[in-house]
Amino acid sequence: VEREDQHRLAELLEPLHGADIADLLEQISPAERRGLLTLWSGHMDGETLSEIDESIREEVIEFLPREVLAEAVRELDSDDVVDILEDLEEPQQEIILDALEDADRVAVEQALAYPEYSAGRLMQRETVVAPQDWTVGQTIDFLRQEEWLPAQFYHVILVDPRMRPVGHVSLGRMLAARRDVRLNDITEDGFRTIRATEEESEVAYLFNQYHLISAPVVDENDRLVGVITIDDAMNVLDEEHEEDILRLAGVSEESSLADGVLETVRQRLPWLVVNLFTASLSAVVISMFEDTISALVALAALMPIVASTGGIGGTQSLAVAVRALATRSLTSSNAGRVVRRELLTGILNGTGLAIILGLAGTLIFGDPMLGIVLGLAMVANQMVAALGGALVPLTLNRLGFDPALASGTFVTTLTDVMGFFAFLGLATILLL
Amino acid sequence: VEREDQHRLAELLEPLHGADIADLLEQISPAERRGLLTLWSGHMDGETLSEIDESIREEVIEFLPREVLAEAVRELDSDDVVDILEDLEEPQQEIILDALEDADRVAVEQALAYPEYSAGRLMQRETVVAPQDWTVGQTIDFLRQEEWLPAQFYHVILVDPRMRPVGHVSLGRMLAARRDVRLNDITEDGFRTIRATEEESEVAYLFNQYHLISAPVVDENDRLVGVITIDDAMNVLDEEHEEDILRLAGVSEESSLADGVLETVRQRLPWLVVNLFTASLSAVVISMFEDTISALVALAALMPIVASTGGIGGTQSLAVAVRALATRSLTSSNAGRVVRRELLTGILNGTGLAIILGLAGTLIFGDPMLGIVLGLAMVANQMVAALGGALVPLTLNRLGFDPALASGTFVTTLTDVMGFFAFLGLATILLL
Repeated sequence: VEREDQHRLAELLEPLHGADIADLLEQISPAERRGLLTLWSGHMDGETLSEIDESIREEVIEFLPREVLAEAVRELDSDDVVDILEDLEEPQQEIILDALEDADRVAVEQALAYPEYSAGRLMQRETVVAPQDWTVGQTIDFLRQEEWLPAQFYHVILVDPRMRPVGHVSLGRMLAARRDVRLNDITEDGFRTIRATEEESEVAYLFNQYHLISAPVVDENDRLVGVITIDDAMNVLDEEHEEDILRLAGVSEESSLADGVLETVRQRLPWLVVNLFTASLSAVVISMFEDTISALVALAALMPIVASTGGIGGTQSLAVAVRALATRSLTSSNAGRVVRRELLTGILNGTGLAIILGLAGTLIFGDPMLGIVLGLAMVANQMVAALGGALVPLTLNRLGFDPALASGTFVTTLTDVMGFFAFLGLATILLL
Repeated sequence: VEREDQHRLAELLEPLHGADIADLLEQISPAERRGLLTLWSGHMDGETLSEIDESIREEVIEFLPREVLAEAVRELDSDDVVDILEDLEEPQQEIILDALEDADRVAVEQALAYPEYSAGRLMQRETVVAPQDWTVGQTIDFLRQEEWLPAQFYHVILVDPRMRPVGHVSLGRMLAARRDVRLNDITEDGFRTIRATEEESEVAYLFNQYHLISAPVVDENDRLVGVITIDDAMNVLDEEHEEDILRLAGVSEESSLADGVLETVRQRLPWLVVNLFTASLSAVVISMFEDTISALVALAALMPIVASTGGIGGTQSLAVAVRALATRSLTSSNAGRVVRRELLTGILNGTGLAIILGLAGTLIFGDPMLGIVLGLAMVANQMVAALGGALVPLTLNRLGFDPALASGTFVTTLTDVMGFFAFLGLATILLL
């Protein structure tokens, strides 16, 4: 279809939501993408543009005629423009800024002045405010006169004469109230403002924890500078989950399915090289016991069982701790109890596994001593795994790092080294 | 504080949001929880009750006096009551149902008739509707008269005479329109309804993809039966992320920090036992090469390096694929291209690692042949890792399973077995 018929293509894409067109652009191959954009780029609107994944957005923008780009960007709220601009190079940023009207350009430039990943970048500057002494009737009349309102808003923010937010009224309550009711009397409980310099992860936490729909953003003087809505917070939450999963697995978090092979290698190889060195630690430990292995080669075959099961136990404990830290249900007040629980769990799991493995080892090799060595090493390694899985992310978190970052390698290195050491060490003592 | 002063406690907890009180209850120890509930349970409100994690909710409900429970439950919208009831045993369900007024009880019982994890369970039955030929003025007058409105609503749903939704108007647009404007002329673009039998993961996807704030739910005759709002969808999204992280790590997804040791063992031990058996496959592979290891014991020390690096490579590829499947950016249309990219990435990563490891092996052991064996095994294993990491979740997904479930064990078993086999096999051929 893509090669020929421009009209047919426009017809097919016309009824689709911007997010679906963006997904389509991401999923087709680079060559198909170029073909499609050549035919269709004149129809690009702001919504589609802001839905496109950042990994291909630069490429797409280069294909757009200036006028189309300008038109698309002008439709958007300021937070979406900022989101697009953040990931672009200087010259492309300039093109888009030039396309904006003066007032919008100033708003966008001010937002870009806030640090990356701050509430200031996330917010839209367009707010709907009313003086705190207005009535419902006054407010509705004002909204009806207003030429321009944000595409989505859920509250009218009440401000004092110095533009400091003092409360907000949900549109539902305003619609249900009589015209002479004062806004001040129907403000929503649990009103809270967010500082423009707040980190976006904190913003996402607040929205999730308190079920916020929108929240006003204030500057250092508590004056209103913008508003963050739930869709922005949901985006951040989604990105953070992605980061957690990818970082736990040792993939750089900017990865995208649309990345090419070389880009993907660049994201993953460094981590593999780190692992190459940590895995060498296991090799060093094993080589300390070469005499033991020479004497009983079966040990070489059995040792990965203890190490691998330890790795899984550590990963379980780690995933629970990383997730609990992300949702803030693991804090300094219950860290001690959680670590104790993990340790006990490790001992019990280790004992269960030790019984199975010990019996199997005894039966298969006809040597109860070998079964005991397998069992003891298993218990020791599950204890280390459980402790490491909980303590590594807790420690990283306390030191101010992302608890998901590198945790996986730390913990599996720990369980590998401990698994080999405990098993071969015990075998040296008890079997030779 | 907890032991003595009831008033002081009430004072301290009074200003807190329900979600924070619920967090507090989860984080303290079981004994402290009992103490706190004994003193404070009379103050429990509906919001706090619905925020409490399901792992301790049953325990908390047993502490509440009947009247307090009844009062708390009556405050809630029907979807929150359903959410609480779902996780309770029969007798407790009865107590809560009895506490509800007749109309609410019927609504809740109808919701419970929908399958678990369906849109019907997620929705609230309370909707705000208007006939499609009404004007803004008529609607506002109607809302002002209405005694009872849902706690949160973001749209007025337009229905035809048979109660089938035909569009919806955002409250913002309604407030900005003149009284004589017809609702039909200001409906929102991108209106879509959700079937009550739809799975909740599909609902979360729709909200995330199309930035919905609320969406009407319809029965099999397209008649309106309820509405789902974004906070419900955000909850589902959050739970699914949790499931993904925990399942990838081999932890049963109902796990909670408030679970006791035995409960935690029950969630994790089965997976460890599975791993014990899959790890035994590696042992079998290694034991096939016992003669080779006897001849050159250093091989026993080196073999975990190839296996472990393969495990990390597989995990990277796996995490990317699981995440892409969850966000539906990996579909049958681009699966082939993604698998090809992973394979090429695996070959390049393997080559990079092979050069480092091969050189190191050659230098340390003074045997270039050993370096070549290490390098070749590394390339082979990274290829298998990359392919397995992508193909295992894709296959599970196509067969209708959760791609995160058990993927980790499959892939690491694959890379362990392949790592040991390639390395020891090549060593047997090239070194002996």
